[in-house]
Amino acid sequence: MSMPKLVDHNKRKEQIAEATWRVILDKGMEGATVRNIAKEAGLSLGSLRHYFSTQDELLEFAMNLVEERATDRINKITTQDMPLKEKILKILLEIVPTNQETMAEMEVWFAFTFHMRHRNNRLKDYDDKIFLGMKNIVNYLHESCLLKENLDKDTEAERLYALVDGLALHALLEPERVNKQRVLTVLESHLDLICTEEQSK
Amino acid sequence: MSMPKLVDHNKRKEQIAEATWRVILDKGMEGATVRNIAKEAGLSLGSLRHYFSTQDELLEFAMNLVEERATDRINKITTQDMPLKEKILKILLEIVPTNQETMAEMEVWFAFTFHMRHRNNRLKDYDDKIFLGMKNIVNYLHESCLLKENLDKDTEAERLYALVDGLALHALLEPERVNKQRVLTVLESHLDLICTEEQSK
Repeated sequence: MSMPKLVDHNKRKEQIAEATWRVILDKGMEGATVRNIAKEAGLSLGSLRHYFSTQDELLEFAMNLVEERATDRINKITTQDMPLKEKILKILLEIVPTNQETMAEMEVWFAFTFHMRHRNNRLKDYDDKIFLGMKNIVNYLHESCLLKENLDKDTEAERLYALVDGLALHALLEPERVNKQRVLTVLESHLDLICTEEQSK
Repeated sequence: MSMPKLVDHNKRKEQIAEATWRVILDKGMEGATVRNIAKEAGLSLGSLRHYFSTQDELLEFAMNLVEERATDRINKITTQDMPLKEKILKILLEIVPTNQETMAEMEVWFAFTFHMRHRNNRLKDYDDKIFLGMKNIVNYLHESCLLKENLDKDTEAERLYALVDGLALHALLEPERVNKQRVLTVLESHLDLICTEEQSK
């Protein structure tokens, strides 16, 4: 019950979550059995059950960790000092996978989403958070007088959300065409189109 | 070997494909076993194997049928006589699921895509076809002098593709918020934004 023990416990849970991601990346959701995950984490089935008593509990923890890490990266960017448009682009690039880490997260997220759909509705929260983030971005643009006046904020948030998740899907499924430069080009041109010309350049 | 027999054979294969969709919708990809599909189709395992010798063969046929039916619906629209912008909206609404039929197709498509990723790269064709369709739409707009002059056709095709697939994903995962009216609003505002004002209204 001492503090160091608790830290070790959480650290070990994170290691198991990372092993889970690797198994999902390699074998898909069907391969994400407790047995395969224990093997990947270098643990016995008994030890794994000490940390997670069910497969669903483990998968949920692994998904929450994906979200937590993405949120941490985004929060770090929001505190940085840079032009608003540049900041927004940087944040969007944390959601659309353009490197191995975010690619793995996105793959796990999609695999998990379609796996869980036939079990329960647990993932609703996660989706709402990203949509809320898009709403915030559109609000920032509006408050900074960057958003074109004739645009509806609610429609723009929905459009940005669809654009970002569509790019994320394509970056994952067609990484050769939809590479980092192309994602950047599309996002930049989108911001240019919804922002007033004078101030967005 | 007579003609009616061949028609029956194809018809029966389509019925099995439809049973496959229902199983995927109900139980997810993990439940799409040959045994479950045979049961749903009201066939013995032996009869099913007469039409499809492997599970992958069956799944591939079921996916191709999704694509074929979507293509048929889109082709029907392209031959109709109506204003270009209206026609494009109608076509895009065939890709973004807004009714039970297209919703089921999209669910099967996503489940199948993430299932097959860990097997082979069979689905590349399907993706390319939708992207090609988006390129065609942007080209039509350009040739009809509707596309704003400062826009890059290639970037616009990628953006439209991401927008449509992102909306499709959200219509599937968050159908209450992303309903048909909302999908229409976002797509219409997008077309308004990339089209010249005089001619798009």
